[in-house]
Amino acid sequence: MNVWGNNIKLSIFGESHGKAVGVVIDGLPPGEAIDADEVAGEMLRRSPGRDRFSTARRESDSVEVLSGLLEGRTTGAPICGVIRNEDARSRDYDAKLRPGHADWTALLKFGGHADMRGGGHFSGRLTAPLAFAGSLAKQILRRRGVEVYARIAAIGGVEDEMEDREMRDRQGYRAVSLRDFPASPSAEEAMKRVVDAAKEAGDSVGGVVEAAAFGLPGGLGEPFFGSMESAVASLLFAVPAVKGVEFGDGFRLASMRGSEANDALYVEDGKIKARTNHNGGILGGITTGMPLLVRAAIKPTPSIARPQESVDSATMTETIVRVSGRHDPCIVPRAVPVIEACLALCALDGLL
Amino acid sequence: MNVWGNNIKLSIFGESHGKAVGVVIDGLPPGEAIDADEVAGEMLRRSPGRDRFSTARRESDSVEVLSGLLEGRTTGAPICGVIRNEDARSRDYDAKLRPGHADWTALLKFGGHADMRGGGHFSGRLTAPLAFAGSLAKQILRRRGVEVYARIAAIGGVEDEMEDREMRDRQGYRAVSLRDFPASPSAEEAMKRVVDAAKEAGDSVGGVVEAAAFGLPGGLGEPFFGSMESAVASLLFAVPAVKGVEFGDGFRLASMRGSEANDALYVEDGKIKARTNHNGGILGGITTGMPLLVRAAIKPTPSIARPQESVDSATMTETIVRVSGRHDPCIVPRAVPVIEACLALCALDGLL
Amino acid sequence: MNVWGNNIKLSIFGESHGKAVGVVIDGLPPGEAIDADEVAGEMLRRSPGRDRFSTARRESDSVEVLSGLLEGRTTGAPICGVIRNEDARSRDYDAKLRPGHADWTALLKFGGHADMRGGGHFSGRLTAPLAFAGSLAKQILRRRGVEVYARIAAIGGVEDEMEDREMRDRQGYRAVSLRDFPASPSAEEAMKRVVDAAKEAGDSVGGVVEAAAFGLPGGLGEPFFGSMESAVASLLFAVPAVKGVEFGDGFRLASMRGSEANDALYVEDGKIKARTNHNGGILGGITTGMPLLVRAAIKPTPSIARPQESVDSATMTETIVRVSGRHDPCIVPRAVPVIEACLALCALDGLL
Amino acid sequence: MNVWGNNIKLSIFGESHGKAVGVVIDGLPPGEAIDADEVAGEMLRRSPGRDRFSTARRESDSVEVLSGLLEGRTTGAPICGVIRNEDARSRDYDAKLRPGHADWTALLKFGGHADMRGGGHFSGRLTAPLAFAGSLAKQILRRRGVEVYARIAAIGGVEDEMEDREMRDRQGYRAVSLRDFPASPSAEEAMKRVVDAAKEAGDSVGGVVEAAAFGLPGGLGEPFFGSMESAVASLLFAVPAVKGVEFGDGFRLASMRGSEANDALYVEDGKIKARTNHNGGILGGITTGMPLLVRAAIKPTPSIARPQESVDSATMTETIVRVSGRHDPCIVPRAVPVIEACLALCALDGLL
Repeated sequence: MNVWGNNIKLSIFGESHGKAVGVVIDGLPPGEAIDADEVAGEMLRRSPGRDRFSTARRESDSVEVLSGLLEGRTTGAPICGVIRNEDARSRDYDAKLRPGHADWTALLKFGGHADMRGGGHFSGRLTAPLAFAGSLAKQILRRRGVEVYARIAAIGGVEDEMEDREMRDRQGYRAVSLRDFPASPSAEEAMKRVVDAAKEAGDSVGGVVEAAAFGLPGGLGEPFFGSMESAVASLLFAVPAVKGVEFGDGFRLASMRGSEANDALYVEDGKIKARTNHNGGILGGITTGMPLLVRAAIKPTPSIARPQESVDSATMTETIVRVSGRHDPCIVPRAVPVIEACLALCALDGLL
Repeated sequence: MNVWGNNIKLSIFGESHGKAVGVVIDGLPPGEAIDADEVAGEMLRRSPGRDRFSTARRESDSVEVLSGLLEGRTTGAPICGVIRNEDARSRDYDAKLRPGHADWTALLKFGGHADMRGGGHFSGRLTAPLAFAGSLAKQILRRRGVEVYARIAAIGGVEDEMEDREMRDRQGYRAVSLRDFPASPSAEEAMKRVVDAAKEAGDSVGGVVEAAAFGLPGGLGEPFFGSMESAVASLLFAVPAVKGVEFGDGFRLASMRGSEANDALYVEDGKIKARTNHNGGILGGITTGMPLLVRAAIKPTPSIARPQESVDSATMTETIVRVSGRHDPCIVPRAVPVIEACLALCALDGLL
Repeated sequence: MNVWGNNIKLSIFGESHGKAVGVVIDGLPPGEAIDADEVAGEMLRRSPGRDRFSTARRESDSVEVLSGLLEGRTTGAPICGVIRNEDARSRDYDAKLRPGHADWTALLKFGGHADMRGGGHFSGRLTAPLAFAGSLAKQILRRRGVEVYARIAAIGGVEDEMEDREMRDRQGYRAVSLRDFPASPSAEEAMKRVVDAAKEAGDSVGGVVEAAAFGLPGGLGEPFFGSMESAVASLLFAVPAVKGVEFGDGFRLASMRGSEANDALYVEDGKIKARTNHNGGILGGITTGMPLLVRAAIKPTPSIARPQESVDSATMTETIVRVSGRHDPCIVPRAVPVIEACLALCALDGLL
Repeated sequence: MNVWGNNIKLSIFGESHGKAVGVVIDGLPPGEAIDADEVAGEMLRRSPGRDRFSTARRESDSVEVLSGLLEGRTTGAPICGVIRNEDARSRDYDAKLRPGHADWTALLKFGGHADMRGGGHFSGRLTAPLAFAGSLAKQILRRRGVEVYARIAAIGGVEDEMEDREMRDRQGYRAVSLRDFPASPSAEEAMKRVVDAAKEAGDSVGGVVEAAAFGLPGGLGEPFFGSMESAVASLLFAVPAVKGVEFGDGFRLASMRGSEANDALYVEDGKIKARTNHNGGILGGITTGMPLLVRAAIKPTPSIARPQESVDSATMTETIVRVSGRHDPCIVPRAVPVIEACLALCALDGLL
């Protein structure tokens, strides 16, 4: 179902080569000032055509807000934001399935009725409305002392080993997150080399995006099925290309002993705190008040120029596919504001 | 919220040292024969006190079904299964917080009103009702040609590298899954040594559980927020101790190129198939018909005998905690039927 | 689906002649004292076998609470309450469909697999768990200044015309609601005569139950689909035998002019109030702070001794049915605490 | 929450004097042909400015579909329909609360931040997107043999007593429903006189709308909380001005005996049928296969020219309000396609 959330409800719509993509956001508190310039800036972070790593498709990604805002403030009624598709080069549907893409499963599910031009409703373009919704969430959260930032943790095997100290520090995290290339300067060049090499080979490369929410109070989330980890993961796995989600040290915890993985507790300013954050700010599905840390594995863009074995679904015969057109050799940098938006939406949903 | 599912609804309840744990399962199709012996066998797989790795607490974990079954068949009405707590040694609440445990967050959320004896509602004991629900789901799925199995993929850094061939083969997977120690014989000894070493050191160790659903038709799941990955992850992250979830090659995809990660397509018996299964049977959130493969990172049991820095929540002073009592040095083997149950419930929810 | 609610989640289970009926209630605030004697008293109000109007089936309707309470207080975890069926005279399923009963539709839906002994999951006995949940809700609400009462507004065409003054007055309403026969003394005899006459004729009779919530703050409910009227009606129409729901003057508003139906506003103690309450405390789906007034039409019990034309579903032939056994000639008095419970649950769901 | 439905999800947005109103409809089956002319015709049935009974505001109510349709067919992805507000005369917010209107409760809920120009998000204008969604539902239903029609059952106390025979007959119902004034010719003049009299007096008048779904299969709906009556009522009570909902004979059942209210059963063409339809096609919350009959009480439009006692919310002083501007003396005729749309959406939601 295209609806997500408990206190906030998101309803998303649109296709890559249709008229528009958009989202209805219900449940935002009334009276919240929304800075339209900041929203536009956020949309720019995700928008295509900005550098040599992203598709040549150019979209201004400006959002028309149809409802729910009055004189720059939320009214309490649902906000509908619409982003028109401008540079959608209409083309006929290609019956040759792109390996690793939803072409195959859209066919299984919708029996040929899906509008699969440019990936249709399964396109990464659907993350533009998410970025819009996340931008509203971040503004509302900031006023409540909560800040959410994301960064590139790895690209094509090149990891950005931020110091643990930085990871618990809002300023350090923000500095990296807001860079044009949102990774540590020390990692940037190696990452870019990996992408360039893939691009030259007509190939693509994946990576890991990490997001952190600072200032989130303890006690958010519900026991069992309502765990904060369930909520965040369910939204992140909606983002095309995400194939793994982990909190805190995640899969590395599987190799640790309890004495390493447990975060020792102490008292500071009359509050309980943890000396480390291996559990990523969540215990028993409930936030601890430590930074909420989550990492998402982004698979390499399936659309590549290299020839691939595939099937022509019209004739049900095997064929070779070479995906031409405008494609990102690496979507990881553009995924950063999207993962950030997801975490912000989850944080706000939990907070309200 | 303690309710999960779309077509099936699960509502879970209970505390570790209260009267009982249980679950209400709504939405199962009517007329399905349920083999009570098979259910009992499944409960035994998860139950404590069976070997040297699990807690000495002994529970028969027999399920009393209060509703929804008539003469061994589902009626279409909700099934309520209740598992009484027999060996719950009542003790007073200990204000010393166990690091890595929900003691801290239960306090933040419920302000001291939670029944935290033995972990209370946050205890791993709540997975017994999940195993019960999963057992029903597996019986109903099998009749529809779908089988779900899980295995230990890693314990304490020791990985069980099953051959890729085996991973796509129902028989091979079942053989490993149904072993007393559900890992390949070649990995068993090394894994047990790691657990023994941790136990001797008064410590615990984590691991990775993998589950696979064979025979699932293509086309299950919904676009965007209703992705099968979102559904599976949201249920898995409800299981205590799960800190990471990945599908197919998961985080390893982040280091791959598109040409490696994309599963080449071909035609067999008039159907489209994939030569490899890096994407774990899901593309665009929709099942492909290939085996659905998911892995869950299980953190080491936080309850360990070794001294740990912590806080006494009654006095808000720092203290040293040594968790005595009956605790598993490694819960990974007992988590196998639970992760399996979760995947079965998701598969059935998607199929109905 | 057998799950209801937004902030509270109710999950109900059980059959009339099975082992038990019960409910899981999730989302109650932690630390709320629950008076078990009061709960028992509420269960008695609804229980059968108390007077000449109700079925001779005798059930103590005592509730075993399996979870979520510790030393008489809510813990924040789900509460599961189980009510065993004691006087369920097991009998074989009768293929003769009772007109006006769910026998027919259970067959259509569950194809013969439903446990329809005594009405099964469709039985009015399922309202016992609702009364239990409502009893908890009423105790929690009272502590927040909200009281909910219900009364018999009509039986078999005999209406109880309480004065409008009384209807806005908590004390007057409570006095009537807590009577053994919860109607005005002036209406009691006429109502009882109608029931006796129906009983003598081997027939049954319906009525109207009205409930009022006093002290509810304004501003509860959500615009459009989340209207308080939608929430209350969706729960009331789950109660077997309810065929109509109206708020304030309800269907009588359809014959009024705007100048009569609009409630004139004034200021008292710095707050806006309404001089009349034709809209039943709700405008635009949101509570005004005036008493919330709702009425439910209860159809006559379908199980009657008089011969009726029907169908034998086993042979698909027409037949005559005479429903023998223990049946209420009028369930309206027993419906009073149930409708009250429903309104209390809605009020608490909106308030949290 | 502004989201409704189980298999279909509706997400509605917009304000009376904002840019637009609209709806996102998710879950429609793929490949369904949608006749745009028929949609436009349906929008016209509800649109204002067509006769002397409705507001002079003129809106073409043409729908721009942003997503989910390709070459006139549903794709399976969500459909977003947007209806621009053309004749919205922008005016400042008036602090004088209109009695009987959501002005008061919007203030309680949103604290002055709501956009209440023209009723804002609480305006009857929000029913335009419902009519659009209902139009799609009706086209999809018709192809499955289900037809939904509504009619005026009463206006200002003048009832249209259609013969019981007609009420069970699809053709007779359709003929009345599709009239310009959707009531029996014999009732039309008396109804119009009542409206004219109210209009002359600067007043308004309410009524009752009845809707029927013909051809719906038996077995739709779920036991207990998922009853078809709960689903239909929850959607109808979202429609502004609806204050009562009843199924079949509804509140009249409260005065009947069981022997009158029970619908006698017989066999025809190998299927069980009912000789009468007092229960409105629903027993135990599940459809019987008889026509589903529902009636909604519509209160008189609260906006009237006559002076009314009220409060100025800016100064919190009592004042007299005369609502000037363009208002319907009777919205009942315009409510007919809306109630019809609601029933169609419920029928489709249950059928899928």
